[in-house]
Amino acid sequence: MTDLTTSIGLLGYGTVGSAVDRLLNDRAEDIARVAGGPVAVRHALVRDIERRRDARDGVLTTDFAAIRDDPAIGVVAEVMGGIEPTRGYLLELFAAGKSVVSANKQLLARHGAELFAAAERHRVQLRFEASVCAAIPVVKVLRESMIANDVAGVLGIVNGTTNFILSAMAGGQTYGDALARAQELGYAEADPTEDVNGADAAAKIAILASIAFHTRVTIDDVPFNGIEDLEAVDAAFAAELGYKIKLIGSAQRLPGGVAASVHPTLVPTSHALAGVEGSFNAVMLRGSAIREITLVGPGAGGDETASAVIGDVMSVLGTSGTGFFQSDGYFRQLPVVPESEVESGFYLRLDVLDQPGVLAQIARVLADVDISIESVIQRAADGRAQLVVTTHPAPEGRFFDAVGRIRSLGVTRAEPTMLRALPR
Amino acid sequence: MTDLTTSIGLLGYGTVGSAVDRLLNDRAEDIARVAGGPVAVRHALVRDIERRRDARDGVLTTDFAAIRDDPAIGVVAEVMGGIEPTRGYLLELFAAGKSVVSANKQLLARHGAELFAAAERHRVQLRFEASVCAAIPVVKVLRESMIANDVAGVLGIVNGTTNFILSAMAGGQTYGDALARAQELGYAEADPTEDVNGADAAAKIAILASIAFHTRVTIDDVPFNGIEDLEAVDAAFAAELGYKIKLIGSAQRLPGGVAASVHPTLVPTSHALAGVEGSFNAVMLRGSAIREITLVGPGAGGDETASAVIGDVMSVLGTSGTGFFQSDGYFRQLPVVPESEVESGFYLRLDVLDQPGVLAQIARVLADVDISIESVIQRAADGRAQLVVTTHPAPEGRFFDAVGRIRSLGVTRAEPTMLRALPR
Repeated sequence: MTDLTTSIGLLGYGTVGSAVDRLLNDRAEDIARVAGGPVAVRHALVRDIERRRDARDGVLTTDFAAIRDDPAIGVVAEVMGGIEPTRGYLLELFAAGKSVVSANKQLLARHGAELFAAAERHRVQLRFEASVCAAIPVVKVLRESMIANDVAGVLGIVNGTTNFILSAMAGGQTYGDALARAQELGYAEADPTEDVNGADAAAKIAILASIAFHTRVTIDDVPFNGIEDLEAVDAAFAAELGYKIKLIGSAQRLPGGVAASVHPTLVPTSHALAGVEGSFNAVMLRGSAIREITLVGPGAGGDETASAVIGDVMSVLGTSGTGFFQSDGYFRQLPVVPESEVESGFYLRLDVLDQPGVLAQIARVLADVDISIESVIQRAADGRAQLVVTTHPAPEGRFFDAVGRIRSLGVTRAEPTMLRALPR
Repeated sequence: MTDLTTSIGLLGYGTVGSAVDRLLNDRAEDIARVAGGPVAVRHALVRDIERRRDARDGVLTTDFAAIRDDPAIGVVAEVMGGIEPTRGYLLELFAAGKSVVSANKQLLARHGAELFAAAERHRVQLRFEASVCAAIPVVKVLRESMIANDVAGVLGIVNGTTNFILSAMAGGQTYGDALARAQELGYAEADPTEDVNGADAAAKIAILASIAFHTRVTIDDVPFNGIEDLEAVDAAFAAELGYKIKLIGSAQRLPGGVAASVHPTLVPTSHALAGVEGSFNAVMLRGSAIREITLVGPGAGGDETASAVIGDVMSVLGTSGTGFFQSDGYFRQLPVVPESEVESGFYLRLDVLDQPGVLAQIARVLADVDISIESVIQRAADGRAQLVVTTHPAPEGRFFDAVGRIRSLGVTRAEPTMLRALPR
């Protein structure tokens, strides 16, 4: 094994990049024993060398070509983020015969097909464990362990910021207070938009759907909404009904193709995902042979992400460029099913007129479109009547049609609140 | 990729072996797309061809040499079980240049070191995902994803039979009734000895400790006891204290080496392992960079085990024999720490004389050996006094020493009941 490439390149030397460098050093003994020799960062690309005075001497460079053209580097870890110039760098690296490990979910969720095809053409690997849920090894498991399975679905809590906020809201806090607390503790960015609006989770679900079903799914195929508009009253009602509210990413294999989405969703308290609290992530895989396997752990963090990057680097080194699980042949093209045809259970909260016959009218509308009610709470307080209905699964389009008809009854006094609910 | 070996051999054609054959056929299209060509069972070794009339024509053989000497077969899946002649067959297969995928936990937990060294010598792979918790991909994750981590510990529910029984006991059933129900549902064998006495879990923990800490741990290094003597009253007391009783396999990296054990243990209801119910298994990995990752799923079953076997077969084919994660160099030799020096929290239930000063005497003994009490329940009923104490973690030897001193006080009226307790 003395001919193994043991020098790697880094694109980026922020929290994750510096952690990769440090962990490779801290774990040098075990890594050398496993790989048959040391593995070390040779060059790390940064924009401004002066900004990272803590880096090892001589490791930083501002010259991409120093990495691309170094014949000693066989694997490059991309931890710089962004779409451009990152995408262009990856294409150049593949053309130079270098394998790439990427932590960049937005890049993969948007340009995965192009990047995989380019890697395949140049007979190098593109691995991306760190792009989804940091060190939770869901990418390797889906690509390498599940081949005997016709994967039916992936269900996950794939954003730690929103899960932390939702856990706090379940404890009675408002959205605003919970977000402020998350920012204070470092679980939410100063600008939390991509996390709280669901875009971060949607990119991860696009990647997971791609590898679960061996097909191309981009972030544009994933309808999503976030948790910004959630009210504490719904968390309370959900609890009363035996549910917790979670931001659930879902990818399903349907008769007509695949569907993926991200929505705040009621999860029965007995469900494996209901117990995932705080900043943790979890992904549940359902398959023909495995029944269901759930992976739980911290979904973010510098060291956690670096751990996944190093696992991928070592997997590239350990498979000498021939691992067919990384190949583009893994993918086919299935149609994407529109969300209106996908089935879901729903939670519907209505602020209604406090007069006789309102419940009967609403129940009639649901019955007319063949939607089955699972439970009802009706409660009058402060001169208002609140009506909460949960339904058994039905095509989403049909449910939204029913809500439109309910609004036109003229018995509601405010915009209805709608959430998906997982079956009990 | 047209030169990939696509014929495999099977040793054994029982529930798992026939499922491997069937799933390879059911999933032929996806597998061919990923691997670049079909993968099929060419020969399957059985003792009696007549017994398996459902097998495909011509696939069964009673001649081991037909598999060992077939140059078209590059990978053999061992799903026959047993120690001999299985061990000898594997050594012959390695010598013939064939990689092996094994589902045989007892063989690996007893003869792993010899088998890995032989595979390494002949430059072939030995993979064994199916030997631990069926399709839960804990072996691949530990070997291939965790290299950046100094793994601190592995904690798991790795036997589904006992977990099913314990779930039923938590619901109020006696051990005997729960076992009978498990047998009725097929979760327990007619002879459940190896499951209920902890031996099955101990073999799995030996394997997990080996790969978590990159060292040799055999089943003889794993002290274990089972659940046969558990009483419903302890399940009730545990619940009252905020715990569930689980059969916990533990492997720890300690300053002096490694320690592994299997014991019925109180798990706080808020712990990730407390929610694992029925026949499911779960393994929690703690590491320096990953914090903790938990994998949950069905730990047994023909299709589930076959799924893991096929994942391993494909991983062998996809890495062309060069994957260094499978190499013997992965292992070092750390000392095994005796259980008496390992720390654990404890639950101690004593049947004591109903007279003044008993609690004070017992508390004094614990204080004398520097064991800290976490909680106490004292209760008199039917002329007996029951005293239940839980402790903070302390070296096990010191705890057992204290129990010995408590017995010699002459205030107990029956053998004490002792269980490990995980920290809250």
